[in-house]
Amino acid sequence: MDLHLAPFDVLGNLAHARMLETIGLLTTDELTALQGELKTIYGQIEAGQFVIEDGVEDVHSQVELQLTRVLGDVGKKIHSGRSRNDQVLVDLKLFTRTRLWQVAEATHRVFDRLIARSDEHKADLLPGYTHLQIAMPSSFGLWFGAYAEALADDMLTLQTAYRFANRNPLGSGAGYGSSFPLNRTLTTDLLGFEGMHVNVVYAQMSRGKTEQTALNALAAIASTLSRLAMDVCLYNSQNFGFLILPEALTTGSSIMPHKKNPDVAELLRAKCNRLKALPMEVTLVLSNLPSGYHRDMQILKEVLMPAFDDLLDCLHIADYMLEHVQVKPNLLDDPKYDLLFSVERVNALVLEGVPFREAYRTVGKEIAEHTYQPPRELHHTHEGSIGNLMNEHIVEAMQDALAGFGAERTQQAERALLA
Amino acid sequence: MDLHLAPFDVLGNLAHARMLETIGLLTTDELTALQGELKTIYGQIEAGQFVIEDGVEDVHSQVELQLTRVLGDVGKKIHSGRSRNDQVLVDLKLFTRTRLWQVAEATHRVFDRLIARSDEHKADLLPGYTHLQIAMPSSFGLWFGAYAEALADDMLTLQTAYRFANRNPLGSGAGYGSSFPLNRTLTTDLLGFEGMHVNVVYAQMSRGKTEQTALNALAAIASTLSRLAMDVCLYNSQNFGFLILPEALTTGSSIMPHKKNPDVAELLRAKCNRLKALPMEVTLVLSNLPSGYHRDMQILKEVLMPAFDDLLDCLHIADYMLEHVQVKPNLLDDPKYDLLFSVERVNALVLEGVPFREAYRTVGKEIAEHTYQPPRELHHTHEGSIGNLMNEHIVEAMQDALAGFGAERTQQAERALLA
Amino acid sequence: MDLHLAPFDVLGNLAHARMLETIGLLTTDELTALQGELKTIYGQIEAGQFVIEDGVEDVHSQVELQLTRVLGDVGKKIHSGRSRNDQVLVDLKLFTRTRLWQVAEATHRVFDRLIARSDEHKADLLPGYTHLQIAMPSSFGLWFGAYAEALADDMLTLQTAYRFANRNPLGSGAGYGSSFPLNRTLTTDLLGFEGMHVNVVYAQMSRGKTEQTALNALAAIASTLSRLAMDVCLYNSQNFGFLILPEALTTGSSIMPHKKNPDVAELLRAKCNRLKALPMEVTLVLSNLPSGYHRDMQILKEVLMPAFDDLLDCLHIADYMLEHVQVKPNLLDDPKYDLLFSVERVNALVLEGVPFREAYRTVGKEIAEHTYQPPRELHHTHEGSIGNLMNEHIVEAMQDALAGFGAERTQQAERALLA
Amino acid sequence: MDLHLAPFDVLGNLAHARMLETIGLLTTDELTALQGELKTIYGQIEAGQFVIEDGVEDVHSQVELQLTRVLGDVGKKIHSGRSRNDQVLVDLKLFTRTRLWQVAEATHRVFDRLIARSDEHKADLLPGYTHLQIAMPSSFGLWFGAYAEALADDMLTLQTAYRFANRNPLGSGAGYGSSFPLNRTLTTDLLGFEGMHVNVVYAQMSRGKTEQTALNALAAIASTLSRLAMDVCLYNSQNFGFLILPEALTTGSSIMPHKKNPDVAELLRAKCNRLKALPMEVTLVLSNLPSGYHRDMQILKEVLMPAFDDLLDCLHIADYMLEHVQVKPNLLDDPKYDLLFSVERVNALVLEGVPFREAYRTVGKEIAEHTYQPPRELHHTHEGSIGNLMNEHIVEAMQDALAGFGAERTQQAERALLA
Repeated sequence: MDLHLAPFDVLGNLAHARMLETIGLLTTDELTALQGELKTIYGQIEAGQFVIEDGVEDVHSQVELQLTRVLGDVGKKIHSGRSRNDQVLVDLKLFTRTRLWQVAEATHRVFDRLIARSDEHKADLLPGYTHLQIAMPSSFGLWFGAYAEALADDMLTLQTAYRFANRNPLGSGAGYGSSFPLNRTLTTDLLGFEGMHVNVVYAQMSRGKTEQTALNALAAIASTLSRLAMDVCLYNSQNFGFLILPEALTTGSSIMPHKKNPDVAELLRAKCNRLKALPMEVTLVLSNLPSGYHRDMQILKEVLMPAFDDLLDCLHIADYMLEHVQVKPNLLDDPKYDLLFSVERVNALVLEGVPFREAYRTVGKEIAEHTYQPPRELHHTHEGSIGNLMNEHIVEAMQDALAGFGAERTQQAERALLA
Repeated sequence: MDLHLAPFDVLGNLAHARMLETIGLLTTDELTALQGELKTIYGQIEAGQFVIEDGVEDVHSQVELQLTRVLGDVGKKIHSGRSRNDQVLVDLKLFTRTRLWQVAEATHRVFDRLIARSDEHKADLLPGYTHLQIAMPSSFGLWFGAYAEALADDMLTLQTAYRFANRNPLGSGAGYGSSFPLNRTLTTDLLGFEGMHVNVVYAQMSRGKTEQTALNALAAIASTLSRLAMDVCLYNSQNFGFLILPEALTTGSSIMPHKKNPDVAELLRAKCNRLKALPMEVTLVLSNLPSGYHRDMQILKEVLMPAFDDLLDCLHIADYMLEHVQVKPNLLDDPKYDLLFSVERVNALVLEGVPFREAYRTVGKEIAEHTYQPPRELHHTHEGSIGNLMNEHIVEAMQDALAGFGAERTQQAERALLA
Repeated sequence: MDLHLAPFDVLGNLAHARMLETIGLLTTDELTALQGELKTIYGQIEAGQFVIEDGVEDVHSQVELQLTRVLGDVGKKIHSGRSRNDQVLVDLKLFTRTRLWQVAEATHRVFDRLIARSDEHKADLLPGYTHLQIAMPSSFGLWFGAYAEALADDMLTLQTAYRFANRNPLGSGAGYGSSFPLNRTLTTDLLGFEGMHVNVVYAQMSRGKTEQTALNALAAIASTLSRLAMDVCLYNSQNFGFLILPEALTTGSSIMPHKKNPDVAELLRAKCNRLKALPMEVTLVLSNLPSGYHRDMQILKEVLMPAFDDLLDCLHIADYMLEHVQVKPNLLDDPKYDLLFSVERVNALVLEGVPFREAYRTVGKEIAEHTYQPPRELHHTHEGSIGNLMNEHIVEAMQDALAGFGAERTQQAERALLA
Repeated sequence: MDLHLAPFDVLGNLAHARMLETIGLLTTDELTALQGELKTIYGQIEAGQFVIEDGVEDVHSQVELQLTRVLGDVGKKIHSGRSRNDQVLVDLKLFTRTRLWQVAEATHRVFDRLIARSDEHKADLLPGYTHLQIAMPSSFGLWFGAYAEALADDMLTLQTAYRFANRNPLGSGAGYGSSFPLNRTLTTDLLGFEGMHVNVVYAQMSRGKTEQTALNALAAIASTLSRLAMDVCLYNSQNFGFLILPEALTTGSSIMPHKKNPDVAELLRAKCNRLKALPMEVTLVLSNLPSGYHRDMQILKEVLMPAFDDLLDCLHIADYMLEHVQVKPNLLDDPKYDLLFSVERVNALVLEGVPFREAYRTVGKEIAEHTYQPPRELHHTHEGSIGNLMNEHIVEAMQDALAGFGAERTQQAERALLA
């Protein structure tokens, strides 16, 4: 798992080395040698050739070992003015912001799919429920679009998590700084961080908080997806029958020859529900620990790292499911949904001048006496209603949220370091 | 508890009424009458004279009842184009954004206290720990400042929660919109919302998400406070003895005449820990519920509302504790803390040209052979270190975070509605 | 809230006083006087006349005050060999075991209702689902009976919680015992405890564990009820239509004249879901606290005490709902459920000698080609199946679980102390 | 991971096959052939030679494949009267009860270690704390013994979990039973189950409940261990200095040459804290799912299975740590602990006839005026106190709890099936 940190360890080393040179702890030649070797290692990582050798404790030691093997004492000098604590922390920050951005992009793809399906099915009506009771007409346009807007909102939470991850802890040492005249502003710029964790004690305290905030954001997206999956399972039940899942997304039963179970949607739901529990794991590990680093914090990597893979999988599955799910047309023609139009009938009376409470009573009476006739024509025109989805407004909100990450800038900085 | 929603129900009514008039569902005279009566009710609420009468179901019904009692049928017409669902939802949004801002202000006060104490004690050294083992020199300046910066970061989470709450759901009806030609943009502006929940199905789905996001933000602050409280309890233990709590913040024992227990810090810690569990309550209530309103959502009020009071109490207590806690001077003169300076000794050797790993070994040997002399002079000058706290940078971050709420604008809108 | 502890404080005092007399710390006359006054206070509590006076800290101080007011110094002597810590702890133990038994009895009532409804409707068939897809025939007999058996199993968890609560901590003082020659075996017997928390340090450590175990047990029952409520909400949806809720258990809508929403079942579901979060609150408060009493533990009362009331309410509501819910007959006559019988068709072929996998394929083909004829006759006879519910076996399991509490014995001891 | 279920799948198959023969669905010869082959497979599993081949879905299919490969159609007949659902469920039950018993045995080993250390150090005094403030004298005998008694209590929770797992679901099919005349009582006996899940709908509903109950029990033990680890970390801090950890259990720092960090204790604490979050994962996955099997339940394996390994690791580490930790002698000779004896002084005055409240005031005055002399002689003799640990009573409680599992009986049945 530690291997995931390898490229980020190289980036952190490159920035730290450049800074050490500016304060005289490395000569220009030493810097050049270190940069060359670090870029070689980065190449190995990208090519999948980097391994942690037997007996080497972790990814940071492996990088150090390779530097020392080639450069001798110069390889050791890169550790000046740095503790293993702030080295790990900066790697985690770089890793986390990168993975959060990947989540943002994958979420964006699902979002685009939802918007497309919403536009496609804006005229396909769907029973709307409250309390699981049939309530008022809805549409697949609204249904798909609602989940799109939910993801646009989740992107704000993700952006906040990104901004937490996008702060420089380098130079905080073991949480109490260093007596070397480090230039933390410089490493902040070189690594493309939005800013630094100023106070060195706080920089260490941000460990845990960064993971928690990231996992809260992943949980928000997981929440949206699990509700979507629940809807799909329900709407795919014969008793609803609103959606058709393709064969590839269903499985049979070992004893019931008629079964087409929506296993994929169920696994999506369950996996997302598990993800929602992860912030609590972090909370539990950290609760009541006094300030200062504790080894407990290293366990948080085991919570955070697989969570990214799991959510990215879920987003991929959701996208595939949304691409292939078919919508049943003309659902509201079934007379069992006649009552969905009762509010239309009430409103029609109101527009004829009948006070609302009286109209409400009248329609109630019609229903009880079976004289009620559903007015199937809909006139929903206001913002966000069946007749006026305003999806372009939602798309804009998503784009604003994405722009707020400032991911472009951090990527540029990373490329510059490696150039 | 419902009474907390009363002023916001009036605000929502005022905006809805003004919008209804623009689309011809209320005459100008009717609007004038409604506005007058609504402002009267608002006055009663402010004066503490508003009560929910026996037999009246909730605050919304009580407001409606008072309108109808005075204005007759006109009082009923305000319900046109609105469902109880979006009425409650808009009230909750207004309530939540207001309370979140109160939390922001109370957090800001604690923040200012921490910065002040940090400045005051920047020269008072404190043992720094990692793994609960003595590590390197720290200072009360760093310790107070670290919690200040933590709160500045928490403010970003709070701001996101505020932005979630600051969206207009009005016009979404029971989650499926309305056939009346509502002007949702107008009510968005009148109520000072940053924007609207566009999709009407999503507007209802935001219920739960709003509460969850708000409670996550409260939990983030509670997390910071509970860790602070843990530090205080530990540092107040005779085995640390770094802090002195005033009598008002300690209690005695029924059997041990020597006891001065830090009950207040312990209660602060425990109350904050409870707050950290609340997001999970919301998650549990909502998990696997299909889309569409369910009555379950009303239970979330019982989770959210007391949480604000509890956290505001905790912030008040924390502020009082931070104001009165005394710092013990000259802690590092105690020889048991000599080892804190071992890194200084290593770095001194490094600056004399000894390679780091060799210097590290030398000092280790000195310690083992009891020849180690702690170099008590500190030279920490880089950004965020003992000698350069950069508190003004942290203050700036806090001010930026607060400005990002846009609270000014919403308050202006509210005042305009009531004018 | 503290008032709930009042009767138990008197019981604890009575036992402690009798023990003190046996070791010479009270004279026989003093004991007689104390017992008389304590019983008077108990009478006041039972009559609802006991109040905590202004300025008195808690229920324990109020009892002490009343004793001292009447008996002077003798009233103070009862505090010998006891700390506030073990006094509160014994009160909590007595309180908790009493409330857990009330929960057991209320659960038993719901259980009896479920068994009765199961027997009543053993012949009423119901579609059985897996993956929310129609699967095989079930029955209301099975459905009601399943929840009965779930509660019988939950009773084992409740019994364990009861046994945790049914241990004597008295004599552990502040967690480090006493130098008085206390007789803890005697107070264990007098208070009807099943045993004692032997080690005095552990006795204090049991605080938190007792609450956690109790709340886990309440959560287990809540889990069963919330799932039942979810089934009711779903089966009451028009798309299922298996159950009819009486008017008293449904509510209308402010805008839809046709609505009969199952609010009561939804609130039951939501309240039970909240209860499921409470064990995590206790976990969070206690996590990473070192051993020894902390004031944090007092907060746990605020989690535990309302939980009992909430669950008892839920059990009462569930019972009412189960009493009044009506079952729709002849559900499986609807052709949309024909496929439920596909396994019957497969098994019929198997009994005619066709290998299972071939029979499975044959029936699959019949379904695809629309030649499948559902064999509506059921032959389920084995233990626990539609034709052989074995409810009497489940009733026996419940009775065994209840007998295992040993509640009789503790009640006898309490009565003896008060006699 | 699925491989863990392999031996249990064979056991389930053996019992099911023997039952099928008694109801005429297998001939005696077929049974003999199946039993022979199943035992061969069991041998392969034990020898580590059993693998799930490429393209084979799971462990159950692999077993079926091997049977069919050797025995042809007879291999398929074993699936009669059984669904994949109850087959998986019975495997999980057998797996869970086996693993729970392993946890019980490993916990018992830690318990024995604690008792041994408690006996060894019953005369070594330790400061006792409340509120993290020095309170009264304690001892290492009490401290070790307290954790032993905690584990004995946790064993009751584990026993309940074992009893939940020790119920036969076989014959419940997909949750709606079978039309074959299965003999579920027979398979219950053959597999050594304590009883059966009678109602077939409930048998499926027990999925999730079994995992939850098991994880609650693991969490209870984890809770005890994490608190122990917290104590060790604190007592190992230089500011307490009560314990010495051997080199093998500490690690150094990359920059501080003096460090010996208690990483092992910290990892124990953190891993146990993570385990405490797992019951909530199960709760979240299951919340609000209606009755009947859902694929979501399969995810629970991924939560449950690693939890056993993790806790067994933790128990192993705890045992090693407890074996090697050294206790510092004569701690209370340090004058900073003089105040621990204040209650002894109060009690001495009480025994001389001074009323408690007056004695309390007198000693308080002595302390304030620095005339207080600590009476270092202790006279704690009552049950569970320093002078009378009653560890043999705690050992007895542990043995009773272990006997209550009935593990002997289930192991006998498993051996008989394989004979």
